[in-house]
Amino acid sequence: MIQPNMATMLGFIATDAAVGRDTLQDMVRHVAERSFNVITVDGDTSTNDSLVLIATGRAGNPKILGEGTAEFNRLADCVLEVAQVLAQAIVRDGEGATKFLSITVEGGRTREECVRVGKSIAHSPLVKTAFFASDPNLGRILCAVGNGGIADLDPEMVTLHLGSVLVAEKGGRAAGYTEEQGKAVMAPAEIAIRVGLGRGDESATVWTCDFSYDYVKINADYRS
Amino acid sequence: MIQPNMATMLGFIATDAAVGRDTLQDMVRHVAERSFNVITVDGDTSTNDSLVLIATGRAGNPKILGEGTAEFNRLADCVLEVAQVLAQAIVRDGEGATKFLSITVEGGRTREECVRVGKSIAHSPLVKTAFFASDPNLGRILCAVGNGGIADLDPEMVTLHLGSVLVAEKGGRAAGYTEEQGKAVMAPAEIAIRVGLGRGDESATVWTCDFSYDYVKINADYRS
Repeated sequence: MIQPNMATMLGFIATDAAVGRDTLQDMVRHVAERSFNVITVDGDTSTNDSLVLIATGRAGNPKILGEGTAEFNRLADCVLEVAQVLAQAIVRDGEGATKFLSITVEGGRTREECVRVGKSIAHSPLVKTAFFASDPNLGRILCAVGNGGIADLDPEMVTLHLGSVLVAEKGGRAAGYTEEQGKAVMAPAEIAIRVGLGRGDESATVWTCDFSYDYVKINADYRS
Repeated sequence: MIQPNMATMLGFIATDAAVGRDTLQDMVRHVAERSFNVITVDGDTSTNDSLVLIATGRAGNPKILGEGTAEFNRLADCVLEVAQVLAQAIVRDGEGATKFLSITVEGGRTREECVRVGKSIAHSPLVKTAFFASDPNLGRILCAVGNGGIADLDPEMVTLHLGSVLVAEKGGRAAGYTEEQGKAVMAPAEIAIRVGLGRGDESATVWTCDFSYDYVKINADYRS
């Protein structure tokens, strides 16, 4: 958690657009699912996070009503951009974080199962400590994919990219992949992980950070 | 995980009793659910754990057939005792572990929901680092109870004991509880946590350890 003694995260986004009340509620849900609800530092959901979207109507536009209209989509995209920047800032500020990880899961049957696999990777202490060590430990990531709760996942169909490097496919290490390539990808402070599930057209991205000595220090020594 | 480069955990238990094959399978499942399947160090399930129960029949007893008979229960209790000692030994040997935690969840509607709440507590990095710090952080434990996935849990009914001390009830800190009592309970290397859900008669116990600097060290520096 980020501020365990506070209220814990309160997010406010305001727009001058005129938007119907129910439409605004749909929009904030759409945005939260793709920003604040897909970040995690340690998997510990706080008891009292809030995201509030306020529309003053001062822009004088014809009131936006109903999800899926062109106006809804345009405004939702803008609000989402703001929300993602804010949500990612929470991860970058994660306790002891030294690496920022974007985990994209593609080829799922539903967005929900992609989020589930992404969070399984993001919550694995073994994955998080490997990223802290800048170690391209493919087994730990693939193991977390397998622990993502998709009972009928076909391991032969799973692909794994670190950055732009294909590191695993067809149930094993990718042909031509060398650990030097993996190490080069793991060195920077921002790393993209891409998992293909090979069973559908849905995708989702989850953002997280690594797990360092300082995570333990901050969360164990906070009262001394 | 305990030996990430090996096969990973192979458990073998043998008895001279004569037991039918299907009955033996029922017994090993019964035992695994109450021993190896309720321990966790970091929530990272390995890909290839096995528990094998072997019955030679050399004891010459009338063959035990069928779950729930007196003979089945007597043998199952003995095998369970062996399995729990072995399973708990894995936790005591957990990477960087300084504390051994027994988490008992009572008053659930099903054993499964009790296991789920127990594992939610056992997997919370915030709970695990608080135990490393010997800090009686009630909020972190109660938060993990709330994250245990019981949608209609009534927080007013939840009780929390650390050792024999009632620390929380009726949605708040227990009357008369002092932090000095909590700190005294947190000091030893073995700690019992007891959660009451107040909604049924089922219970389950999960065993885990704390989360220390050395967990990160062992899992980040393992290749250097």
